[in-house]
Amino acid sequence: MSPVPVVVGVGVTGFAADRFDGTIRDLVTEAVLACLADAEVTDIRAIQHGLASYESDHFNRQMTLAAILHDHIGMTPLPTVRVEGGGATGALALRTAWAYLQSGLCESILVYGGEMNGRSVSSQTANQLFALSADFDWEMMIGGTYTGFYAAMIRAHMRQYGTTEAQFAHVAVRNRGNARFNPIAQKPMDITIADVLSSQPIAEPYKLLDCSLLSDGAAAVLLATEDWARTHSPKFNQRPPVHFVATGCGTDTMRLGDRYPHITNFRAKRAAAERAYAMAGITDPLDQIDVAELYDSYSGVEIQAVEDLGFVAYGEGGSRVAEGMFDLDGALPVNTSGGLLGRGAPVGATGIVQAIEIAQQLWGEVDSRRQVRGARRGLTDTHAGIGTIAVVNIFERRD
Amino acid sequence: MSPVPVVVGVGVTGFAADRFDGTIRDLVTEAVLACLADAEVTDIRAIQHGLASYESDHFNRQMTLAAILHDHIGMTPLPTVRVEGGGATGALALRTAWAYLQSGLCESILVYGGEMNGRSVSSQTANQLFALSADFDWEMMIGGTYTGFYAAMIRAHMRQYGTTEAQFAHVAVRNRGNARFNPIAQKPMDITIADVLSSQPIAEPYKLLDCSLLSDGAAAVLLATEDWARTHSPKFNQRPPVHFVATGCGTDTMRLGDRYPHITNFRAKRAAAERAYAMAGITDPLDQIDVAELYDSYSGVEIQAVEDLGFVAYGEGGSRVAEGMFDLDGALPVNTSGGLLGRGAPVGATGIVQAIEIAQQLWGEVDSRRQVRGARRGLTDTHAGIGTIAVVNIFERRD
Repeated sequence: MSPVPVVVGVGVTGFAADRFDGTIRDLVTEAVLACLADAEVTDIRAIQHGLASYESDHFNRQMTLAAILHDHIGMTPLPTVRVEGGGATGALALRTAWAYLQSGLCESILVYGGEMNGRSVSSQTANQLFALSADFDWEMMIGGTYTGFYAAMIRAHMRQYGTTEAQFAHVAVRNRGNARFNPIAQKPMDITIADVLSSQPIAEPYKLLDCSLLSDGAAAVLLATEDWARTHSPKFNQRPPVHFVATGCGTDTMRLGDRYPHITNFRAKRAAAERAYAMAGITDPLDQIDVAELYDSYSGVEIQAVEDLGFVAYGEGGSRVAEGMFDLDGALPVNTSGGLLGRGAPVGATGIVQAIEIAQQLWGEVDSRRQVRGARRGLTDTHAGIGTIAVVNIFERRD
Repeated sequence: MSPVPVVVGVGVTGFAADRFDGTIRDLVTEAVLACLADAEVTDIRAIQHGLASYESDHFNRQMTLAAILHDHIGMTPLPTVRVEGGGATGALALRTAWAYLQSGLCESILVYGGEMNGRSVSSQTANQLFALSADFDWEMMIGGTYTGFYAAMIRAHMRQYGTTEAQFAHVAVRNRGNARFNPIAQKPMDITIADVLSSQPIAEPYKLLDCSLLSDGAAAVLLATEDWARTHSPKFNQRPPVHFVATGCGTDTMRLGDRYPHITNFRAKRAAAERAYAMAGITDPLDQIDVAELYDSYSGVEIQAVEDLGFVAYGEGGSRVAEGMFDLDGALPVNTSGGLLGRGAPVGATGIVQAIEIAQQLWGEVDSRRQVRGARRGLTDTHAGIGTIAVVNIFERRD
């Protein structure tokens, strides 16, 4: 097998509910320029391929946006492609970039993506647009919404395993707390479990502070073969090399009803993790993973995820989370960035910014208050819909 | 270099302006079932990966459609991804599938895609939606439309090279005539150059019969390593093997104005072709390509394409086309399927069905009236917008 790709540089904008200072092309350009500066690559045309990551034409009232972004950042006439998969978009973009590099089609590829999800929410149609992520023909007509589906899943988890609202409130408190140490975070908060429990009910048992954010923002990652990185990026030669060692993807039925009665967890995530672990040679993920960014679209989803990813047994997620196993000083710190709950989640950028947090953790370059000392292997967990497409990407520091 | 992927099986629906007998999921399923039958693969779960190809969330009033399609055809929990790039979507999907296979992420991948473009046109919003393919911020506001941009390009070609309306009318006549021998074609017609010239002006010099179709339809192609194909597809072992030997992609500015005064041709297409020819070891494309499907979104675009692809010199496209060089009995038959003008163009299926025509030509399995005898190497040319993203894929019969 050929050597696996490396992370050459990363760039990200500040995340906010309303980045009124620019359009999506401006935000993506901001992230790309930050990425080039980080990698110390001065000519974008030295990079051989582009790859655009965004969720929906709806959010930008624009089709073929990939071509606009590619043009705007100055990469024509070089090749590009757009990858999408709902909430998993950014992670699928990186997975596909991995494939492009490993196939030999290119030796370097710039993955750039973002979304204007915060802004669109200020118009009346935003919730209608997000509702289109449910099956329009079979779920919308019965009034199904995402928060409702997630609520039904965690309710089933509570019934089957005794998981409590206070346990998943712990996730909301911790991730928003971690966000205080991340300068790009949209919603750093210093709150208590009581604050979460007493916040406005949205779809019970989920309350306002259990729900993640709608964000404007963009992110970019430059991936390459190690040879290309050594030749083109002065910065790469000064950092411990971080390799993109594995990628796994799994899928599940679109409709929650089709999974009944197995709705406590995300089968697609288990499938994705198994594939990624096999590629990375991981047999004991809790021991062999040092830091992870998990898809906490709702607080309880993180509890489900630590089970699906094999960090703890099914049913133990709630108590392990509440005991602090995944806190900054725990056995396996997760969502050190603040996660979707605290950092924010512009969809096309989410999987990318998760990978950025992991790369920076492995480089040892994040704020010391959230830095995981000696981290050598990190994981991102990202999914679409209600776990309909799940992607697990794994990165390793190899020095 | 590892052995290149092979085409294991193909499937396509009938194309029509209004497939009111089903939704997009039904059409894609119809194409996928035809593909499985063609490959003689009985269990879809033997295929290791899916890849969805469609252009816009707008056309189906649905986000995360890839997950719905993947679920509907029965491929969960296997991995999938969606690829998009405007009119080049289907060709980029195949290119990405090539990369997935060559990277070792999977040994077989089912590329399925389609669009309901014909149907949506019956609603008032369809043209508004397609208009969103232009740059909303910078072109829409000045009333820019695709037909207008294409008209400006061919007008420049006429001025610079003396290309005539009768020359590109030849394309409209020939491709619609070829469609008579293709059972899936949407608009087979037996017309004359006079018919084209006297049809309703749309954006001069383009008239109604110079314009391609809006279509409902779907297509699927199963690609795999040769080893996988030999093991899993009885039919593969009975056919001459067709390999997917090369893929090239190029890009250009989003806005036509940014290319001025170089607007007679498609620079992205030249860039894509150069990369694909280098991969395939082609130095004389007119001699070394036996059959090609070109992106005839407007009749004159085929004239521009035969130049950009290096079949003839710049400026010679019009006269060579009119002389019959690319007719069924010419030196290099193109658009034997009928092309976008005669066969139809449901966007997400277009690049796929082009590849299907080429594979079937190389297998020697199309209607004898359009079969190119002894064809051993074929090419597809597909592009987004006004040549903003161009993809050239090349297939070879190797027996």
